[in-house]
Amino acid sequence: MRLQYLITIIIMAAFILPEKVSAQSNSNYLRIAKLTIDSIKLEGYKEALKVHAETAIRVESGVLMLYAVYEKEHPTHVSVFEIYANVDAYNFHIKTPHFLKYKATVQDMVKSLELIDVVPIALKAKKQISN
Amino acid sequence: MRLQYLITIIIMAAFILPEKVSAQSNSNYLRIAKLTIDSIKLEGYKEALKVHAETAIRVESGVLMLYAVYEKEHPTHVSVFEIYANVDAYNFHIKTPHFLKYKATVQDMVKSLELIDVVPIALKAKKQISN
Repeated sequence: MRLQYLITIIIMAAFILPEKVSAQSNSNYLRIAKLTIDSIKLEGYKEALKVHAETAIRVESGVLMLYAVYEKEHPTHVSVFEIYANVDAYNFHIKTPHFLKYKATVQDMVKSLELIDVVPIALKAKKQISN
Repeated sequence: MRLQYLITIIIMAAFILPEKVSAQSNSNYLRIAKLTIDSIKLEGYKEALKVHAETAIRVESGVLMLYAVYEKEHPTHVSVFEIYANVDAYNFHIKTPHFLKYKATVQDMVKSLELIDVVPIALKAKKQISN
């Protein structure tokens, strides 16, 4: 009887484990983009980023969050906190017409760009914060 | 007749404007905290931050979002994207027992701390991303 239980558990595990591994590799992809913007082009840049973020969230199922801010003390320093469903969703994102249009629009506005892959410690929110 | 309109508008403005100013000063307070953690105390720090973020979001009405991440390439580099209902909510937050306990717990774990006030450009999300 105990051996039967053991065999049942092993068979169940064989079915369950691959799905767990797949879920792991399919985890959300998080990134922080840090940009420095040309000060005389800052307003144009902010408008382009706003339009881009709104479009990406609206039309792409794999773009979960784009929170873009600038530093109060250094308004040309912009950070974007980005969450994609997974790496595939990000790779899809950077080939979309709206992303390519955004990149073309801002290419002369962005002085530096640093992309930092990040891993969640805690993602806690009261409710959706979206404007 | 036109003068009556003008007077009406001025009177209405007198009632409406103070509320607008109040709404402005009551806007969400956004910040990015950047920390460097002692590498041998990293796991303890992450656990303390996780517990703290969960508690703050659960018990404080004015703490809207605490998204804490570490850099994949530099795991001791931690960023927390913070949104409070307003500055008063933040000032309340830093006097709560759970915040003071968190600060006491991590005081020997944190090597550096930089607090950066930020202003939203676009806060776009598909749905609540919370773990």
